[in-house]
Amino acid sequence: MSSAEEVVRGLAGRSFAGVDDFSNQELSCVLALAAEVSKDRAAFSEVCRGKIMASLFFEASTRTRLSFETAMLRLGGQLVSAIDVGATSLAKGETLADMARVVGGYADLIVMRHPWEGAARVVADYAGIPVINAGDGGHEHPTQTLCDLFTLQHERGRLQGLRIALWGDLKYGRTVHSLAFALARFGATVVFRPGVGFAAPEHVLSKLATDYGGELVRGDVLLQADGEGVLPVDALYMTPRSPHQLAMLPHLSAQLELDQGVDALYVTRLQKERMQAQKGDLRPEDYPVVDRKLLRRKGFERSIVLHPLPRVDELSLEIDSDPRSLYFKQAHQGVPVRMALISLLLGCSPRVTEPAEGLGDDWRPVSHPVYTHDTGIRCPNERCVANQPSELRYLPQKFVLIVGTPPRVRCWYCDHEMEPPVIATAEAYDEPTHRRKYHPARSRWAAAIRPENLLLSASSEEAEAAGFRPGVV
Amino acid sequence: MSSAEEVVRGLAGRSFAGVDDFSNQELSCVLALAAEVSKDRAAFSEVCRGKIMASLFFEASTRTRLSFETAMLRLGGQLVSAIDVGATSLAKGETLADMARVVGGYADLIVMRHPWEGAARVVADYAGIPVINAGDGGHEHPTQTLCDLFTLQHERGRLQGLRIALWGDLKYGRTVHSLAFALARFGATVVFRPGVGFAAPEHVLSKLATDYGGELVRGDVLLQADGEGVLPVDALYMTPRSPHQLAMLPHLSAQLELDQGVDALYVTRLQKERMQAQKGDLRPEDYPVVDRKLLRRKGFERSIVLHPLPRVDELSLEIDSDPRSLYFKQAHQGVPVRMALISLLLGCSPRVTEPAEGLGDDWRPVSHPVYTHDTGIRCPNERCVANQPSELRYLPQKFVLIVGTPPRVRCWYCDHEMEPPVIATAEAYDEPTHRRKYHPARSRWAAAIRPENLLLSASSEEAEAAGFRPGVV
Amino acid sequence: MSSAEEVVRGLAGRSFAGVDDFSNQELSCVLALAAEVSKDRAAFSEVCRGKIMASLFFEASTRTRLSFETAMLRLGGQLVSAIDVGATSLAKGETLADMARVVGGYADLIVMRHPWEGAARVVADYAGIPVINAGDGGHEHPTQTLCDLFTLQHERGRLQGLRIALWGDLKYGRTVHSLAFALARFGATVVFRPGVGFAAPEHVLSKLATDYGGELVRGDVLLQADGEGVLPVDALYMTPRSPHQLAMLPHLSAQLELDQGVDALYVTRLQKERMQAQKGDLRPEDYPVVDRKLLRRKGFERSIVLHPLPRVDELSLEIDSDPRSLYFKQAHQGVPVRMALISLLLGCSPRVTEPAEGLGDDWRPVSHPVYTHDTGIRCPNERCVANQPSELRYLPQKFVLIVGTPPRVRCWYCDHEMEPPVIATAEAYDEPTHRRKYHPARSRWAAAIRPENLLLSASSEEAEAAGFRPGVV
Repeated sequence: MSSAEEVVRGLAGRSFAGVDDFSNQELSCVLALAAEVSKDRAAFSEVCRGKIMASLFFEASTRTRLSFETAMLRLGGQLVSAIDVGATSLAKGETLADMARVVGGYADLIVMRHPWEGAARVVADYAGIPVINAGDGGHEHPTQTLCDLFTLQHERGRLQGLRIALWGDLKYGRTVHSLAFALARFGATVVFRPGVGFAAPEHVLSKLATDYGGELVRGDVLLQADGEGVLPVDALYMTPRSPHQLAMLPHLSAQLELDQGVDALYVTRLQKERMQAQKGDLRPEDYPVVDRKLLRRKGFERSIVLHPLPRVDELSLEIDSDPRSLYFKQAHQGVPVRMALISLLLGCSPRVTEPAEGLGDDWRPVSHPVYTHDTGIRCPNERCVANQPSELRYLPQKFVLIVGTPPRVRCWYCDHEMEPPVIATAEAYDEPTHRRKYHPARSRWAAAIRPENLLLSASSEEAEAAGFRPGVV
Repeated sequence: MSSAEEVVRGLAGRSFAGVDDFSNQELSCVLALAAEVSKDRAAFSEVCRGKIMASLFFEASTRTRLSFETAMLRLGGQLVSAIDVGATSLAKGETLADMARVVGGYADLIVMRHPWEGAARVVADYAGIPVINAGDGGHEHPTQTLCDLFTLQHERGRLQGLRIALWGDLKYGRTVHSLAFALARFGATVVFRPGVGFAAPEHVLSKLATDYGGELVRGDVLLQADGEGVLPVDALYMTPRSPHQLAMLPHLSAQLELDQGVDALYVTRLQKERMQAQKGDLRPEDYPVVDRKLLRRKGFERSIVLHPLPRVDELSLEIDSDPRSLYFKQAHQGVPVRMALISLLLGCSPRVTEPAEGLGDDWRPVSHPVYTHDTGIRCPNERCVANQPSELRYLPQKFVLIVGTPPRVRCWYCDHEMEPPVIATAEAYDEPTHRRKYHPARSRWAAAIRPENLLLSASSEEAEAAGFRPGVV
Repeated sequence: MSSAEEVVRGLAGRSFAGVDDFSNQELSCVLALAAEVSKDRAAFSEVCRGKIMASLFFEASTRTRLSFETAMLRLGGQLVSAIDVGATSLAKGETLADMARVVGGYADLIVMRHPWEGAARVVADYAGIPVINAGDGGHEHPTQTLCDLFTLQHERGRLQGLRIALWGDLKYGRTVHSLAFALARFGATVVFRPGVGFAAPEHVLSKLATDYGGELVRGDVLLQADGEGVLPVDALYMTPRSPHQLAMLPHLSAQLELDQGVDALYVTRLQKERMQAQKGDLRPEDYPVVDRKLLRRKGFERSIVLHPLPRVDELSLEIDSDPRSLYFKQAHQGVPVRMALISLLLGCSPRVTEPAEGLGDDWRPVSHPVYTHDTGIRCPNERCVANQPSELRYLPQKFVLIVGTPPRVRCWYCDHEMEPPVIATAEAYDEPTHRRKYHPARSRWAAAIRPENLLLSASSEEAEAAGFRPGVV
């Protein structure tokens, strides 16, 4: 039995709540099958006969929904759907877990969009059937990332070693965050080119550095090097093709990367609703429009142009007929990509497709230990599913521990991170009460506590309420 | 030809606007087929190929809708749907009859939820295709009752002789009313255990007594007998397994029933929207929460727990993993039950399933005579379909007569009952004008009028306007 | 190869944004196939297997939508739908062209209703797949016209020579406008019988006269002739069965037409929303109700009654059981008609059906030259798709030229017409600047300019800004 067969078999019955739910090999097998579907759609037209997909959209998203629904129908499956369900009983006081258990007994697969971050994870835990996240607030939209990877791989023949410029709103766009992480995993170089005030948030950059094993070069260094100002990038992230060299000469390597131009421009929409808040500040030149002029500049001669759509003004209509403009093709490829994913999760794929470049190594993101102590710390993200009144009743706060000085916790559901200011050690419970001490998270005492013994508190008051006293400062 | 075959054949083309549309034998055949579907779903996957169900939801109800739609798709059928159609032309000035005639020419089956009570009956009268009521205001939701009966029968092996406690909001919940009537028909004992202020309405209790031939024992009697206060029931309804004995010793029998515990707790949701109106009054102890503690009490050791969902607080999350908690299974069984019903109404059932316990007697509710005189009385229910401006134009007021002293009328559409205060006799038309008399409904003169001659008026004024004078008092 | 085969082959891949997109032969082939579908629906049940229709309703229209969706399902096809999408990304800032290109890559066919007039034309231009207009504002609803023609032909055996009275609201009802044009094309006589204040707009009457080659007789003449006032028509439009005779005796012919009664009454809804604005003025007798009494009058003895539904009060419920009342049958025939159209556009029709009356001549509406100069004139219709902010960015103003004195332009998208007041000649560009003159549109100078040289301006200012000076007056 080939390894691809094992990988494919392992996908049946699984959920896809976030990109990191799948290993690189698993993602590669989905992309490889998508290429098959794209070439020979007819061969898949009866693959999901008798299966039902529940399309649950708690937020409007016609484009993504139609793409998923088309995919299911093209596999011979069927649909039940609940759209804009904010007002119905599914939302009224009922928990996501109850909803998941009920719908999980009707359908064979759930595709869900929901405003709460981490909602798809919870539904996946309770539904008993595969769940695909079609967007959970500002958190993840992993099938968009699959489509992006597919288009890049399809147009450029590979992912490893590609140079991709992320363009425009890198602050709010969940699609660029997921894509940056995925590109890092596959060994691509990511160039950040935000509009003024739309830089990628620190937690995204820090996760790139912490979790994916590559090298982050900040823009201030790059800008000095960039004589012509052609590509005034904010940051650049490189994954190790030859790690040793990188470690030696990161800034030089970075400049070499930039000098070769980019393989793709990944443009994102200027979010008008947010612009109005800062209208006085935003000048047209602050938001980089991709137009005919830009595409003639050095470094972009062979860049393909992608966009998750809908676009507004950031992508000029004049380049629609340029052969490098692939955003409509990219949108269309959402159907075969989702067909591949659905058929694999439902265990209905009629064949096993070996990725053209082989399976590669089965790289996974760094696996952080679960923080198992209930010390009262809470996820700071108010849109997190674990902070919603209906869900609080049954959903525990849950974190993974990012070891370091200071240590951080990352929410299990929504991936928000937090640096608890106060730290103690679980070993203290073996000590007499008066010797139980807590310390500032950044102190040397804190650094000495072994990760498995860390007790984190949101404040001194909380630590003291739990029976600890201030340590030596 | 077996009798079950005849029963099944008789269901093709029929509508299911209320539970009493079907005889016991018919309900039994639906439940028997549902059991078949549940065991071997694949055998039914092409049964309704080429058929279209119109899913018309004039009120939001995601759960019920998804259950119906899943059922139709699992039979190989297809869907067209109109959801939240309040704003469209289907609702704007157009009559239900016109809508029914148009959609009846498109689809093969209509499933409808509508806020007007009796709406499904009207649509069934005009559509020319089978119509299933998926909820008409506070009136009926007969497929929920089918699902409840199915789960009870499936888990307990029978319906006759079961003891079922109806729990929680027995005042507003249409599901418990329909279920109580159906249980009465199948010879189960119904125990009413409402929250404070949520007792079953008088008209429900009175219909149980009038129409279903059993024995109603009021709670005041039972409470005295109930030393421990374990089950402070409000009322208890028993159908005659040995009718003579019951007639002789009702209260003793009642106590014997209670002493044996209940086979099932049927819990209903505390309607939060109504609670706020009476917040000052409702104490937590007033609404009986079903939790681990309750399930340990005497009489509940082997009670299964059912709930039509969604739940709020009345059903503790802590019992979800208790093997007696069957509410999610109950929700899932909505699909095979509706598959059975749909395939029978469409005449598509591939087989005839003899009920495991045999067909039983073909018991039907008491059939009351239609009140045929147009004496101006109107249904008192303002949510009744016959009282809506658009429907008034073509829909006559229509009643059945509940014979008694005083006589009552029950609305043909919404089942609301009324006791017209003034009564005359149709024979008076043979008398000289000055001898045409009317009487108070509760007078001995009224009692002497034969039912077929009764003329009912909403007031003395109305009777006098119709040419009658006050009778001897 | 037969001619019908060629016609049918030519329909594959086409769009149907307006009735005039199809020649008479093409319309006849759709109607002929619809008759086949109507007779033997089962033969078409797998014809569109594997095809997906995107049902995009940017305005509520349950009836039309259900009819289209039923049609697609009855052909074995599948649906994705977006209903009431005003609030989603499809509408938010995105152009129709982008939406069309994206959805065109998902589905095989688009059915769209949209409030902007001409929207379906734009979507048809960009989608790359067939597009059917299911209503674009007050502009067209061409499949309703197909259904109307089908019912008339089916019930009367032909279209040519029929006398059809259009009844009720002839001002706002787009269905009657399209129907009038189509009837003119097929050689029927159209009798206009509006409610007071609901006469057909001048542009509809003028288009009948300009484009369809028949004879328009105004009502003032007819009213004098109509002794009994039986049919106080507003206008009458006759297409030439024997053109010479008509030209000689139009008024006499008109009277002869009326004397023979009408073959069909086509009744339209009184638009209540508009009535309230003019409530004080509208008396019941102003809006002609079609009831039992009317149907007994001379000239209506054998008239069938049609209505696009929903009806309100203009069509009495008392005639529902009259055998001449065919409006429900007409609604039902929407399904086979749309099945025929869909299968032809998708190139899936399993057979070629020769129209019973033969193909007839391949009559098309008069083809007006495109006005190719960009002289700044704009469509005056604010609901026109070309005047919407999102569409302005890429959609040029575009017109056809209606040659005459004065010449008019008709919007390419929404068919609104305009008489530009100022005219010059393109030949002027060969003249010295000081000799470039403009003229009033109705002047004899204007009449002398050859159509291909006409330059039209919305005002003198505009003409002068373009370098022209006032001509000799």
